[in-house]
Amino acid sequence: MTETDLDIAPTQPWERLSELEATGESASIAEYVDSLSAEDQRRCLSRLSNTDQTHLIEQFSCEIAADVIESLPEAQAAEILSNLEPEFAADIVEVLPDDVGADILQEMSTLESEAVLEELDDADEADHLRELTSYDWDTAGGLMSSEYLTVSTDDTTGDVIRELSQYAEDHDDMEIQYVYAVDQSGKLAGVLRLRDLVVKRPGTSVVKAMIADPATVSVDDDFEALQKVFEANAYLALPALDQNGSLAGVVTRKAVEEATMDHQTEDYLHSSGILGGEELRSMPMLTRSRRRLAWLAPNIVLNLVAASIIAMYEDTLQAVIALAVFLPIISDMSGCSGNQAVAVSIRELTLGVIRPTEFLRIVWKEGILGMINGAILGLILGTIAFVWKDNIYLGMVVGGALLLNTILSVLLGGMVPLLLKKFKVDPALASGPILTTCTDMCGFFLVLSLASSLLSKLG
Amino acid sequence: MTETDLDIAPTQPWERLSELEATGESASIAEYVDSLSAEDQRRCLSRLSNTDQTHLIEQFSCEIAADVIESLPEAQAAEILSNLEPEFAADIVEVLPDDVGADILQEMSTLESEAVLEELDDADEADHLRELTSYDWDTAGGLMSSEYLTVSTDDTTGDVIRELSQYAEDHDDMEIQYVYAVDQSGKLAGVLRLRDLVVKRPGTSVVKAMIADPATVSVDDDFEALQKVFEANAYLALPALDQNGSLAGVVTRKAVEEATMDHQTEDYLHSSGILGGEELRSMPMLTRSRRRLAWLAPNIVLNLVAASIIAMYEDTLQAVIALAVFLPIISDMSGCSGNQAVAVSIRELTLGVIRPTEFLRIVWKEGILGMINGAILGLILGTIAFVWKDNIYLGMVVGGALLLNTILSVLLGGMVPLLLKKFKVDPALASGPILTTCTDMCGFFLVLSLASSLLSKLG
Repeated sequence: MTETDLDIAPTQPWERLSELEATGESASIAEYVDSLSAEDQRRCLSRLSNTDQTHLIEQFSCEIAADVIESLPEAQAAEILSNLEPEFAADIVEVLPDDVGADILQEMSTLESEAVLEELDDADEADHLRELTSYDWDTAGGLMSSEYLTVSTDDTTGDVIRELSQYAEDHDDMEIQYVYAVDQSGKLAGVLRLRDLVVKRPGTSVVKAMIADPATVSVDDDFEALQKVFEANAYLALPALDQNGSLAGVVTRKAVEEATMDHQTEDYLHSSGILGGEELRSMPMLTRSRRRLAWLAPNIVLNLVAASIIAMYEDTLQAVIALAVFLPIISDMSGCSGNQAVAVSIRELTLGVIRPTEFLRIVWKEGILGMINGAILGLILGTIAFVWKDNIYLGMVVGGALLLNTILSVLLGGMVPLLLKKFKVDPALASGPILTTCTDMCGFFLVLSLASSLLSKLG
Repeated sequence: MTETDLDIAPTQPWERLSELEATGESASIAEYVDSLSAEDQRRCLSRLSNTDQTHLIEQFSCEIAADVIESLPEAQAAEILSNLEPEFAADIVEVLPDDVGADILQEMSTLESEAVLEELDDADEADHLRELTSYDWDTAGGLMSSEYLTVSTDDTTGDVIRELSQYAEDHDDMEIQYVYAVDQSGKLAGVLRLRDLVVKRPGTSVVKAMIADPATVSVDDDFEALQKVFEANAYLALPALDQNGSLAGVVTRKAVEEATMDHQTEDYLHSSGILGGEELRSMPMLTRSRRRLAWLAPNIVLNLVAASIIAMYEDTLQAVIALAVFLPIISDMSGCSGNQAVAVSIRELTLGVIRPTEFLRIVWKEGILGMINGAILGLILGTIAFVWKDNIYLGMVVGGALLLNTILSVLLGGMVPLLLKKFKVDPALASGPILTTCTDMCGFFLVLSLASSLLSKLG
């Protein structure tokens, strides 16, 4: 066996980092971190405890620290910033793009974010960030960027091209799509597309080259409005106007798409019982435990409510103990059927092919499907029960209960997301527990009441 | 009450459409459909049966039909195209952008898509579409678009600007970012950014203005590779090269982001038990039923396996019937705890802060959390059991089982997605059933074996 064969696990970046940290040379640490890919940086940071994360970041220049912070999930970035000295955190925030900085500050407590904002050298910048954090993160105000180029309506395309060439040098990694023309009062007068600049003569006046009366959004526009306008049009970015009609920022298609993904992530985490923001395993144990219990505790109550049905039928169960085997099966299978209907409803709501009031359509489309699938599943489970105990009545009770409960589950599963949407409750968060509690209760009731009425034949 | 008060429900677009259809004037129907928003078009189509959808689309010109088809979910678009006469379907496909057409053709059976492709007037176009459909939809080849502008390396920027201005006129709703320079052999020589064109003199040669040796992807690059390169860089689009190094198409950031969302949707549907592509309630009932059963049937088997544990302990249950009340609670609560751990693992995998081999980290981070949450939940449930039957041993059995099973659930829930990822199985699809089967079996076993060993004290 050669030495190479033994060397199966190469040194991991965080192991190398620990070695470097032991030497205490902050320059070489910073250089090493800078050489890592964004993914490895994230992975290194997530390996460390909060204290070590802070300690590591403190050794960087604020430029490298900002680079690393920007590559982290917002929840983690906010955690690290709140642990840093406010002066250094402020230096980092100054280097970050405005919208990224605002998003991270929003994840911190007001006290923490104010501590950082007060340390900013530029009071105007601090006020600007305060304003940005005042918008909900998924509105136009929360998503807009302040990195864009404005020109005056008095300029010519030649002036614009000079400005643009200067701007491109200063903002190397930016892709510029539009230039915004504002009049003397700061109001948006029009939008110049890059491709129009290319094909116009340098002497053309901005007013002639621009799209006058361009499409805009308001800083208060909510996420659904933004999604609609970007879905319906091919815009790469739209100017956002404040209440006075002045240009306040630019909402890019990219920002709206990232927000869409953040919403989908939130939906997924909510439907899995992760509340209060993202959980990463680098977070303090007690925070993680508390947040998970916030979901589990109400669920244990709902479970007790459902199981109380079983307690009411102890005598029946005592007489036909085999029923206890089928109770969890009927509970789980009904949950599965109901969840499929929930997923289809949530998807149809997202696609806009159904509205939150169309219950009759659900009753019709899910009801028939529930009868078909309920009959098939009921037949399978009923046959198994019959064969196992050689009692046709047991088969009828179990199969009949599963049939009826499947119909109920798909009806409920189809309707609950619509109802929740109508009452502005998050369907991803509440559909599951509401559905399982109802289907468990009904399932237990159906099995046990059917069994009670046939008790003499089941013994 | 005035007449307006009675008019609460305004005429819905699909009601108006039915009225128009009754008149049989296809021109006015097409005009009306064209006036609807994309959302209303989708909603109208989803209201109709397959026959009616086909009938409606047949009355449109192929341009309007293509517009409507493009606004539909791909699954629905494919369904409609397969129901149309192949000649008319081919006319529609000719109008659709290549990548959209290819995606829809890919959702159809080979027989159906070939029937359409054979009717295309342009055999080259048909071959091109055949090639596009041969790539997996989420690879560079599947996502690339053929709408881009190429220029020769012999041209000057003045030539490019003339070409560009012609191209912009022909492709009104396109946002052009880059122009691709190819040499005589068709190989990609460089990329011209629009902003560089703006600031260069018209006489500059293309070779001087372009970025030589630009970043590219290969048509075979898979989705993860694309995601990585677009995440690490600010590119709005990257040229895709075929095996010979010739320019085959352009992969835009937008296409990669849409594919990311499609993947997230698929994950969500899979984790909810919707397999075989999206389900919309406008699809045939038997297709929907069959697809849902494909998920439910294996689940009923897994449930039977888990419940067989209960059957083995019938005597214990007979002696302490109260246990039957707690079995479904322990099954459901362990499922909830495990699902939270699954969600955190899938999220950490997505963010890249954990690798599929880091089981020790999971054992450590989830194990402690499982002990804390298990102790709290076990105490709650145990106390309730104790108070209800005034038997401390019942409380110990129930509470102890929940404690142990919670630890097991979070460990399993944390590890299963990593294991599945390692073995290239979709975690969204398989995590749930694997987790619940294991936690149910262990939960039932813990409750009933603990109870058996304390049977004399529980009676």
